[in-house]
Amino acid sequence: MIVVMQGSSAVEEVQLVIERMVELGFNVHRTTGVDQVILAGVGSPSHFDVAEFSVLPGVQEAYRISSPYKLAGRSFRPEGTRITFPNGVVVGGEQVTMMAGPCSVESREQILMSAKLAAKAGCQFLRGGAFKPRSSPYSFQGMGLEGLKLLREVTDETGLLVITEVMEISQIELMLPYIDCFQVGARNMQNFNLLRELGHVRKPVLMKRGIAATIEEVLLSAEYILSGGNYDLMLCERGIRTFETYTRNTYDVSAIPVLKKLTHLPVFGDPSHGVGKREFVPPLALASVAAGADGLLLEMHPNPEKAMSDGAQSLYPEQLETLVAQLRLLAPVVGRTVA
Amino acid sequence: MIVVMQGSSAVEEVQLVIERMVELGFNVHRTTGVDQVILAGVGSPSHFDVAEFSVLPGVQEAYRISSPYKLAGRSFRPEGTRITFPNGVVVGGEQVTMMAGPCSVESREQILMSAKLAAKAGCQFLRGGAFKPRSSPYSFQGMGLEGLKLLREVTDETGLLVITEVMEISQIELMLPYIDCFQVGARNMQNFNLLRELGHVRKPVLMKRGIAATIEEVLLSAEYILSGGNYDLMLCERGIRTFETYTRNTYDVSAIPVLKKLTHLPVFGDPSHGVGKREFVPPLALASVAAGADGLLLEMHPNPEKAMSDGAQSLYPEQLETLVAQLRLLAPVVGRTVA
Amino acid sequence: MIVVMQGSSAVEEVQLVIERMVELGFNVHRTTGVDQVILAGVGSPSHFDVAEFSVLPGVQEAYRISSPYKLAGRSFRPEGTRITFPNGVVVGGEQVTMMAGPCSVESREQILMSAKLAAKAGCQFLRGGAFKPRSSPYSFQGMGLEGLKLLREVTDETGLLVITEVMEISQIELMLPYIDCFQVGARNMQNFNLLRELGHVRKPVLMKRGIAATIEEVLLSAEYILSGGNYDLMLCERGIRTFETYTRNTYDVSAIPVLKKLTHLPVFGDPSHGVGKREFVPPLALASVAAGADGLLLEMHPNPEKAMSDGAQSLYPEQLETLVAQLRLLAPVVGRTVA
Amino acid sequence: MIVVMQGSSAVEEVQLVIERMVELGFNVHRTTGVDQVILAGVGSPSHFDVAEFSVLPGVQEAYRISSPYKLAGRSFRPEGTRITFPNGVVVGGEQVTMMAGPCSVESREQILMSAKLAAKAGCQFLRGGAFKPRSSPYSFQGMGLEGLKLLREVTDETGLLVITEVMEISQIELMLPYIDCFQVGARNMQNFNLLRELGHVRKPVLMKRGIAATIEEVLLSAEYILSGGNYDLMLCERGIRTFETYTRNTYDVSAIPVLKKLTHLPVFGDPSHGVGKREFVPPLALASVAAGADGLLLEMHPNPEKAMSDGAQSLYPEQLETLVAQLRLLAPVVGRTVA
Repeated sequence: MIVVMQGSSAVEEVQLVIERMVELGFNVHRTTGVDQVILAGVGSPSHFDVAEFSVLPGVQEAYRISSPYKLAGRSFRPEGTRITFPNGVVVGGEQVTMMAGPCSVESREQILMSAKLAAKAGCQFLRGGAFKPRSSPYSFQGMGLEGLKLLREVTDETGLLVITEVMEISQIELMLPYIDCFQVGARNMQNFNLLRELGHVRKPVLMKRGIAATIEEVLLSAEYILSGGNYDLMLCERGIRTFETYTRNTYDVSAIPVLKKLTHLPVFGDPSHGVGKREFVPPLALASVAAGADGLLLEMHPNPEKAMSDGAQSLYPEQLETLVAQLRLLAPVVGRTVA
Repeated sequence: MIVVMQGSSAVEEVQLVIERMVELGFNVHRTTGVDQVILAGVGSPSHFDVAEFSVLPGVQEAYRISSPYKLAGRSFRPEGTRITFPNGVVVGGEQVTMMAGPCSVESREQILMSAKLAAKAGCQFLRGGAFKPRSSPYSFQGMGLEGLKLLREVTDETGLLVITEVMEISQIELMLPYIDCFQVGARNMQNFNLLRELGHVRKPVLMKRGIAATIEEVLLSAEYILSGGNYDLMLCERGIRTFETYTRNTYDVSAIPVLKKLTHLPVFGDPSHGVGKREFVPPLALASVAAGADGLLLEMHPNPEKAMSDGAQSLYPEQLETLVAQLRLLAPVVGRTVA
Repeated sequence: MIVVMQGSSAVEEVQLVIERMVELGFNVHRTTGVDQVILAGVGSPSHFDVAEFSVLPGVQEAYRISSPYKLAGRSFRPEGTRITFPNGVVVGGEQVTMMAGPCSVESREQILMSAKLAAKAGCQFLRGGAFKPRSSPYSFQGMGLEGLKLLREVTDETGLLVITEVMEISQIELMLPYIDCFQVGARNMQNFNLLRELGHVRKPVLMKRGIAATIEEVLLSAEYILSGGNYDLMLCERGIRTFETYTRNTYDVSAIPVLKKLTHLPVFGDPSHGVGKREFVPPLALASVAAGADGLLLEMHPNPEKAMSDGAQSLYPEQLETLVAQLRLLAPVVGRTVA
Repeated sequence: MIVVMQGSSAVEEVQLVIERMVELGFNVHRTTGVDQVILAGVGSPSHFDVAEFSVLPGVQEAYRISSPYKLAGRSFRPEGTRITFPNGVVVGGEQVTMMAGPCSVESREQILMSAKLAAKAGCQFLRGGAFKPRSSPYSFQGMGLEGLKLLREVTDETGLLVITEVMEISQIELMLPYIDCFQVGARNMQNFNLLRELGHVRKPVLMKRGIAATIEEVLLSAEYILSGGNYDLMLCERGIRTFETYTRNTYDVSAIPVLKKLTHLPVFGDPSHGVGKREFVPPLALASVAAGADGLLLEMHPNPEKAMSDGAQSLYPEQLETLVAQLRLLAPVVGRTVA
């Protein structure tokens, strides 16, 4: 920690800050400039709140310098994390991972058709929600357990892996037999109890960035899962909330290379939620891979106009096929491949 | 719903939109202008997604006109909601409700002192967290059940009511015997499963606005609780995330009169989290009541420098006393009182 | 400046950073911790860009510690700035300054009536635009010089002072004979050429915060005017742009006490632009004074429904009168008065 | 315009709204539903403010349906705008236009070297500021006229075109003899007087999106230039301000395809300002072209560590070369070429 004292700070104020730092376990190095005193605290006390120093009398600014996440940091595993799934699919390697499917599981027919279309287009994962977080209590809330069973059934048939959203601790046990990967939605990125439980599970997790989460908060939430012992974690940019309302969110493509630098975890992009209108999904999907994404999470529906949720941002099956074809050409430009 | 067609839309495109609207159960009224066709859908189909219309061919814009919340709307209870607590305290009446206390329960001594100080300053509620949502898994996570027991004990002793945060469905049962009011934190405002459960409880709830939640989303989340049958709900502004970083959040004082207009539910302000630095809490607390708040939620600690969390934004006990004295003078200007 | 090196930084990387700092004129103090090297640069080189250090190899983070504004800082004039106008009105003293009037000067009749109503309600200034910045080139752009003459005429008649917006360097000369105070609008807060010219004028200026300006940027823009020698400067919060769209902007009441702490300049609030709907202006005006504002800038129109711009946020004359009456009661609570 | 009345609105309130609409020149079509009255105003009155309707008694919501810009809209020129420069370079065609150079002109040697490097890497334009908008009055403010002359000199020598920023009306005349394209910076996107003057010039303009400008505001500002008769206009995304501070701004890649849909004007990307750190510029440059950009504006400096401004985000010459090489491979995937 570094504490910069005000130019006008009194000797006693400096003294008080030093005492507090020492109390916490810091070794304090003092630099006395012409204008200001600077105190550098060396050491890593397990518990301190930099904000508390910033309001002490005579303090101008206090900075935390040690990064508050350890396991999520790139230096923990400089070579990058690779996750190998039961069927041999590897996430985080040279190949860009493609996940596609409808927002919600709606019926056996719909989800089977979705799986076939996703497989045909070259995807490795089928996405589809069985439990749905909806802003309104009057909206469709998902098929629940029945939906999970259908997901397993149709992916077994098509050779895909299943990723689906978990909203609640009590759903974890229920889901385990049916799925290959848990998805934590943006609204639950700071549901710390849920994250902690997922840290104890032995099944990969893809965690989406919260709608107002900073990069640092994404990594701190990742830390909750990693510190429980589950290292098979993927992160996913899906758009942040800004003043711009033409798109559903502002899809922060720059978060992809930034996260790739800061963490060893694979980084996905979800342009469907990022922009919210299907016509803009393909250009942003291309942009994501151009910017270094390890994978894409895309909404696709056999019949988007009839979708029970998020139809407006779901690709038509042909759009997905065309997009994957473009990605196959684009990926090699940035040293990647697409199946 | 209203659908505005593009100037250049084809007859078949208009026809398709009309068919979709009819399918959903709308009566469609068509206005043909010189430039554009406008379709007004009359009726209230239980399920439709306005975004799906906005991406249909030939559509310029689609607007939902019926408000998506019903029970939370002001017209549901124009006179406003009043909540009466066991000891006779009424929230939502003429008197502004004061809730104060530390971020976390840390020890018997600390919480007892907090309760005494809050009572002495004229507060009706003691706040204090037993379960803490912390961005980092390495921060203090609260005393749990032990904390709940202490809260009950010291408020019984001082005649205060207890409000404390619930983070997880499994904590609800645990908390019921010890508390007077559940607090839903900003990070859980869209934890819909938790909200739904709180709708089935017969104990008041204070729900904070999410850090990136629009006013409409606040009311939709309220709808989850109300639609379960729990009408004893209070809302609380606590700052939103913006580009400004000097304050911890941007405390949106305007949300207070806006919510008072849109809903019958009592509206609180939490300037402690709103600004994050104790010196700015009193001016913003005064501003909140001047703007029409029904109550305040304030962090106060007997010894803020030693607080285990949020010390920087916790008032000194004397600051709280001075503030309440000022509020007693200010409240009558806007037709309210402070005890 | 403080430069925190990465844990893994090489000796040569540290050396390079030190050389750069020395080149710029810093005295460098080095703290070598267990994990990291910290370099504190003491001294105030006239030109350096902290961002350039943050991208040097081996650097984790670089912080500027000296505040980049000098004349605007509170310490430059701890007692606070008071501005005395020709008719004896003092801004920045105990009395809260009231400025009111229509968005635009529309006609002699309209502006005369506005002046009479503002004077009757107890205001010291008449506001009204002669040159209007409008988002659309097809909107009403103001009466120009004719409007300036009318402003002078009706204020001479009513004993008020005139404040009006300047958009362009060439308008400064034109305005000087007619006005008492220049207003710099939010869109021009970073029109540095305009600010520099206003620094050379001997007439007070009220500068509004830009819609996306941080507190620090407000103070840097103030510095442009102050460094030209014009110390008669007032700042004005008027709402920032956030994700919330129910209000026109998010009126950042907390900026008022924050600015009061950081600078000696008087701080105003403009809740009319802050919220954009007249019914919310009075509660936010009260909140602004409760939070410490030195004055208010309010839109009021004799007939808001007929206003040529901003009618929706203009107060009815009676609303202004009621508001001032409430402010007279509220101001003493925070040690102020209202005329 | 569409006005949706509240369910509880009185007959007189509906009547009043209708009268106002008729007064403005609208033909009013009324739809009476079970719950609500909807009023559709057909026609295009030259002046009206939708916000004024939204605050009339009994009104729930009012929507403007005609787009407020005409000349900037895609339908004005569906085939897209192409701008041909004196040396034959075409912007808005199949070839992606590359503009690169330092933030500021600093010396003859520096700008000549920059021009040679930009030309060698395959760029068509040299960028470089002679007049600099700087947040602090104490920062380097540019070389002025001398800088303009140097720009012309070195581009004549290297066969490049010159683009440079104009900050002030009085600079327009001064610049005309030396430059090929005016650049309007983000801070001046709503300097309407400047835009209006640029509408009267016969020289192309590239206008950057303001840091807090919505897509609609970008197009309204474009309208100022177009309505003056200057159709040679390019738009440029350069990052918006959000809560995320790791990057200098949040570079909104999605604005590129959105603008391409809404307007016929060529759309550029400026990832240098978008992200602010050079290592993230190449991935975002690739993303921009993948998303459909017509051109890129990049900061490159022969010696970024010695740059007098924006060094941290300036590419090394070799980085620019490598990037252009990658773009040559990527562009064909989206039907474009790079020289």
